[in-house]
Amino acid sequence: MKKPSKFLPALTWLKNYQASDLKSDTVASVVFTIMVIPQSMAYAMLAGLPAITGLYASILPSILYSFFGTSRSLAVGPVALSSVMTASAVLPFATAGSEQYTTIAIYLAFMSGICLLVLSLLRLGFLTNLLSHPVISGFISASALLIVIGQLKYLFGIEAHGDTLLPLAESLYTNINNTNLPTFILSLISILSLLLIRRYFSFFLNKIGCSKRAIQLFGKSGPLLVVISATLIVAAFSLENMGISIIGGISSKPLEINVEGISWKMTKELLPSAFLISIVGFIGSVSVAQSFAAKRNQDIDPNQELIGLGLANIGSALCGAFPVTGGFSRTVLNVDCGSKSPMTGIISALLILLILLFLTPLFYYLPKAILAAIISISMMQLVNIQDLLYLWSFSKKEAYLLLITFSIVMLDGMESGLIVGVVLSILFFLWHTSHPHIAVVGRLPGTEHFRNIQRFSVETNPSILTVRIDENLFFANASILEEKLQYLVSQNSDVRHLILMCNAINMIDASALQSLEKIVYRLASLGVKLHLSEVKGPVMDRIRNSPLVNNLSGKVFLTQHQAIKELEAE
Amino acid sequence: MKKPSKFLPALTWLKNYQASDLKSDTVASVVFTIMVIPQSMAYAMLAGLPAITGLYASILPSILYSFFGTSRSLAVGPVALSSVMTASAVLPFATAGSEQYTTIAIYLAFMSGICLLVLSLLRLGFLTNLLSHPVISGFISASALLIVIGQLKYLFGIEAHGDTLLPLAESLYTNINNTNLPTFILSLISILSLLLIRRYFSFFLNKIGCSKRAIQLFGKSGPLLVVISATLIVAAFSLENMGISIIGGISSKPLEINVEGISWKMTKELLPSAFLISIVGFIGSVSVAQSFAAKRNQDIDPNQELIGLGLANIGSALCGAFPVTGGFSRTVLNVDCGSKSPMTGIISALLILLILLFLTPLFYYLPKAILAAIISISMMQLVNIQDLLYLWSFSKKEAYLLLITFSIVMLDGMESGLIVGVVLSILFFLWHTSHPHIAVVGRLPGTEHFRNIQRFSVETNPSILTVRIDENLFFANASILEEKLQYLVSQNSDVRHLILMCNAINMIDASALQSLEKIVYRLASLGVKLHLSEVKGPVMDRIRNSPLVNNLSGKVFLTQHQAIKELEAE
Repeated sequence: MKKPSKFLPALTWLKNYQASDLKSDTVASVVFTIMVIPQSMAYAMLAGLPAITGLYASILPSILYSFFGTSRSLAVGPVALSSVMTASAVLPFATAGSEQYTTIAIYLAFMSGICLLVLSLLRLGFLTNLLSHPVISGFISASALLIVIGQLKYLFGIEAHGDTLLPLAESLYTNINNTNLPTFILSLISILSLLLIRRYFSFFLNKIGCSKRAIQLFGKSGPLLVVISATLIVAAFSLENMGISIIGGISSKPLEINVEGISWKMTKELLPSAFLISIVGFIGSVSVAQSFAAKRNQDIDPNQELIGLGLANIGSALCGAFPVTGGFSRTVLNVDCGSKSPMTGIISALLILLILLFLTPLFYYLPKAILAAIISISMMQLVNIQDLLYLWSFSKKEAYLLLITFSIVMLDGMESGLIVGVVLSILFFLWHTSHPHIAVVGRLPGTEHFRNIQRFSVETNPSILTVRIDENLFFANASILEEKLQYLVSQNSDVRHLILMCNAINMIDASALQSLEKIVYRLASLGVKLHLSEVKGPVMDRIRNSPLVNNLSGKVFLTQHQAIKELEAE
Repeated sequence: MKKPSKFLPALTWLKNYQASDLKSDTVASVVFTIMVIPQSMAYAMLAGLPAITGLYASILPSILYSFFGTSRSLAVGPVALSSVMTASAVLPFATAGSEQYTTIAIYLAFMSGICLLVLSLLRLGFLTNLLSHPVISGFISASALLIVIGQLKYLFGIEAHGDTLLPLAESLYTNINNTNLPTFILSLISILSLLLIRRYFSFFLNKIGCSKRAIQLFGKSGPLLVVISATLIVAAFSLENMGISIIGGISSKPLEINVEGISWKMTKELLPSAFLISIVGFIGSVSVAQSFAAKRNQDIDPNQELIGLGLANIGSALCGAFPVTGGFSRTVLNVDCGSKSPMTGIISALLILLILLFLTPLFYYLPKAILAAIISISMMQLVNIQDLLYLWSFSKKEAYLLLITFSIVMLDGMESGLIVGVVLSILFFLWHTSHPHIAVVGRLPGTEHFRNIQRFSVETNPSILTVRIDENLFFANASILEEKLQYLVSQNSDVRHLILMCNAINMIDASALQSLEKIVYRLASLGVKLHLSEVKGPVMDRIRNSPLVNNLSGKVFLTQHQAIKELEAE
């Protein structure tokens, strides 16, 4: 039976949790909560939802992950990629801002949660590995760039629609003449301040004699300072009357979910999006969790992470919010604020609840342009050109994969980009394994080592042909092996023995065994015997279980050296 | 530059072709042509086309393949699987027997030809390898069974529609009461005769003192004898008046292709079918060609085969016929008749042309039930239950793959069965390679060999952990490697050196290199150095080209033995 801590990882850290831990975690939580608010609201806006739902999404998800996740550092909540994927999934079904839109976004969070739980239940977490590095890199760069372009409407104070490059660019171009000057100036100032603060604030704090701890705590408070100043300025001068768009009042009436708007047909149509949102969120989250776990030599259990994140998303739906996951900048903030355990996630959730109950009027004058500026700056850091340059020098094929994924995301959307990228990765990989490296080998004089005859000067025997296959044998390369061996034998008419050196074969399937049988049969009609050497344990087990072992015209040798010795003696 | 014989393989055999060869090939061709006629007409009927188009399909395809194909034995023409796939592809667009139906079938042959040529041009022949043995086996068994069930309407002389199990069974059940007794009796007699002749005719010929050559020539003439007798009996007693369905008169007016019926939309919708027909045809054909080539120690060039079969299909379209390919029973017949070179294909095509010009009235009284009987008997041989039983004992997973493919073909059609089968094969394979066998190894005392610590009693050093990975490293298993190594290090707190033994790694991609970099970084923060040993040439080339080589905290050792010696000396 599994230990209870396997199902509820929180038990591991809770049993040693002490009063002093609670004190330091509480301090960390207060700072973290205040600083994470602008980010949370910005990402809600990115999802096409009222900014306040970003706070809803920071309550239950954070608490549930603290109990069921395996990372001690990860902060779960709204994250840019999941938010923008939510927007592009929901937009085909409802107009942004409508009640129906909110309902579908909530439903999507619920579906993502279920997807993650199902992946965990069926142990299908390995599917997430199908997203190769070039695909993820192209996907993130393109998505981040699209997000920035999508924020331009807030920064210029104009209207714009679309979620791919061309429609967005077209509607921005059409409306650029309607730019609201006050908004534009506010955007410029806030972007500049954010950049300057990010660059010099820690330095400044150090200059004025702050302690290291204080610098660590407040070094990242740039967004918060800008948000507070901008809100105060807008409120003081009533800038909203000059056309600066603000968050406005937050409805106090309870959220009404219109369940009738949700049909089975819509569920089926949303499913691919829910699946992709959960997979992309999971991959990002696990990667963040692992890099922080490594620093503290802790262990992350990916299958349990599926459960933790799955429950977090269901929790988000229950709070009336959109899909969430573990975020990089959120987690960095959490760690920098001094979080020592997942308890900070729980305390922070309670603090956000208090803020929602009593302090929402504070956000009334918060300009949307400020949130857009925060989003834009953090997204620009995700556009990664080095990666492309590196891949270009390392492997053109993988660089093309990145470029194709990037282009399709930009032009046709995030989902098609991901899908095409994954399919191409798989095809490239299959192409590679279906063209195995097959070398004719001979003995290095005076040794028991056998090497490629094209690279080394080796001894061979005209009646014995030894072929080494540097690849697993399976359906995608079985027929190529047949062709290649037949070709080699047809080129060497003196050959009486063909030895397959199997030291690099880790796996063999039924198709490959069938091909080997065909090869044995064809070689036999030419008077050539087929032998195997250096077969690994698991492969030998399979061969023993198949008709091949009875039909084999030659023998199975433990080592290639034995094979040559014995066959030459004949 | 490539040799001309590379583009026109016929040059290879034509340059040594002599008058005596022509004489023996002519005799072989005459016998082959007469015997292959019933089969060709039967398969045309299977494609839902007038039986005579089976002869059209035996002219240009055969000539073109003789010039452009690389097999010396393969006989190209109508084949059961391609024919039935044609029927199921065309049926959604037109009713069988209509002019529109014929037009689309011809267009499909043209499209299949183009598909094959494009596959050759882009060197994408490897895609055909994605059909694994279990998928092909399940597909062929189910298709053959469906074909037999589809022939029941001719054998019973009733109406029936549908191309999957349930609609076919339902309409047969509804109409079984309308069975035409004379047709049914004729069917029974011909099936029995066919089975008896197949079993005992060679034996009988031997008894009456025929020469071996004559037995070889006429041993397979069963279908021809039954066709001739049945045609004569029906003609003599005017059995067509009793409801026995006959081929009837063959229109002498030239075929009118209604090009207006072909739209771009239809082309797009037919494309998947054309693609699958060409791939399935290609796989079957190459496999037959290779097994005959092996007997004569000749070589088959799959890429040139794509060209040969592509041109054959375009030729079939030009003759007003449907998709063709190289067939097994057709080729066996060709070889048994004494064919020595592809010249028989050319002569046989000319003979069929003569028959079409002057002898078609002979087929007037040929009963359709006889063709259905010929089809049914040859298809029943393709239903392969041994294969399932063997796979069941060899690998349950692959047996399920066969069963799933079989069931989907039966219930939902040939195309969906193939597609689901291929996707599942790929997922199974990726699942396997994404769960690599990772073993902690130690030294066999007194040797330089390193083995799994769980299987052998070996020497290890508490500060050195050696891990062997028995799989290529690529995107689908990169993250699993990260997790596993992190887990192993977290379990062995004394470890200062981690050696990755890379002797089974044949390939590494950018995702895996990135994971290795992450591992190096994480291990470094724990004070553990990462070393590599026994890295293969191609893998080392890639590592040298990547940032990993600079970031590596440890060294790259040529052999594992050196690694241990040097690290223990430290």
